[in-house]
Amino acid sequence: MNLLLLTSDDFRVGADDFRVGAGIALVRDDRHRHLVKVLRVAVGDELRVGMLGGRVGRAVVVAIAERSAELRVTLDQEPPPALGATLVLALPRPKFLGRILQCVAAMGVKRLVLTAAERVEKSFWQSSVVAPESVRRHLMLGLAQARDTVLPRVDMVGRFRDLVETTLPVLLSESRGWVAHGDGARALPAEVATPATLIVGPEGGFLDSEVERMVAAGAEAVTLGPRPLKVETAVAVMLGRVALG
Amino acid sequence: MNLLLLTSDDFRVGADDFRVGAGIALVRDDRHRHLVKVLRVAVGDELRVGMLGGRVGRAVVVAIAERSAELRVTLDQEPPPALGATLVLALPRPKFLGRILQCVAAMGVKRLVLTAAERVEKSFWQSSVVAPESVRRHLMLGLAQARDTVLPRVDMVGRFRDLVETTLPVLLSESRGWVAHGDGARALPAEVATPATLIVGPEGGFLDSEVERMVAAGAEAVTLGPRPLKVETAVAVMLGRVALG
Repeated sequence: MNLLLLTSDDFRVGADDFRVGAGIALVRDDRHRHLVKVLRVAVGDELRVGMLGGRVGRAVVVAIAERSAELRVTLDQEPPPALGATLVLALPRPKFLGRILQCVAAMGVKRLVLTAAERVEKSFWQSSVVAPESVRRHLMLGLAQARDTVLPRVDMVGRFRDLVETTLPVLLSESRGWVAHGDGARALPAEVATPATLIVGPEGGFLDSEVERMVAAGAEAVTLGPRPLKVETAVAVMLGRVALG
Repeated sequence: MNLLLLTSDDFRVGADDFRVGAGIALVRDDRHRHLVKVLRVAVGDELRVGMLGGRVGRAVVVAIAERSAELRVTLDQEPPPALGATLVLALPRPKFLGRILQCVAAMGVKRLVLTAAERVEKSFWQSSVVAPESVRRHLMLGLAQARDTVLPRVDMVGRFRDLVETTLPVLLSESRGWVAHGDGARALPAEVATPATLIVGPEGGFLDSEVERMVAAGAEAVTLGPRPLKVETAVAVMLGRVALG
């Protein structure tokens, strides 16, 4: 954890001094345990902190109790800039979803669309990892890794037809779209200009017919090379080519 | 598994017909189980196969017994080209090593140096995941994912001093070196020319003094952006920028 994420609930009831960039926060539960057991902080130690959705800065540990830690917080910097790319991702197998979400948030994606596709098993949508609180928890781990505070917006599209008929036309009216496909005619550019929409299929890939429908909706089919990659690798490779601010 | 890897041991004793690109192989153990339980192959099915260290092709299932499967193999294509990059990686935490090895092999790296660094815990070297047979198993999973057959050479450098004084000077006499560092003065190029040596630190990064020593040995310190990334993400992002054949 490279950043401790705080929310307004962590500040004293009625106090709104955190809005002006400083204040006393009381951290409990998981984060208290992490501070004590993993980071082994002591009074006087300084930590990197950020306000969820807001600025980042530093906190000094003022007191450590059995169930809470008191921090004097100064929030004086902006979080890192957003990546200029929307990611459209066929819903991954639940076993891999959590760490893919962490990676996506860590790399600065601010809009994620999880979509159905022929090779996305229906049962994946029922997994507890897809529940909003689980998705949010993994995204926050990714933010903490990357010292970011701004959660991505996540949309779930349960029918591929809705993706190509409704979601993609809107996204592609305001960005250039690239769908990773083994048989893509050309390679993904070394540097992807922003704003971009990057589209990654399920294990085994999109069907050719699905790629054709996304191409008809305005996306371009591109290859990432001659090697079939795991979903999480393909995601990191594609996001890693997006031009930075 | 996108490719079933065969070795000469799988072919009939005394037969060397596999050398001319065709033959009958008898697959046992884990791979037999995978064929039967996961892929649920039937007689007559066709599979992608490759000879470890050699060519790739197709096999037809001729017979399935309780403990083995007989395949008629044709090896008529070259595996995908090697990635033109050596990866120097601070030995990752054992928990993550296996899947990083898979990623490295899948992306086509043919030489991997696992090195000590200040933030590599000594105990990591004692982990069973670092044992040669475990390393090989994970690399083979990566090859199977990417339909490749050629294992990378893996060197272990147990002292950072040996890395900068012996290993890096040789590597950097024949390739350009890039070390990922949060405070790198410039960004990693969008497209990394080959041959390249890519250097990725441990969780928490290399020490500044370690980076200085690698820079003195001829590497260039580069940033991957303002966000600290996990080791496995940094590896995929860096390898994903290497120019393809």
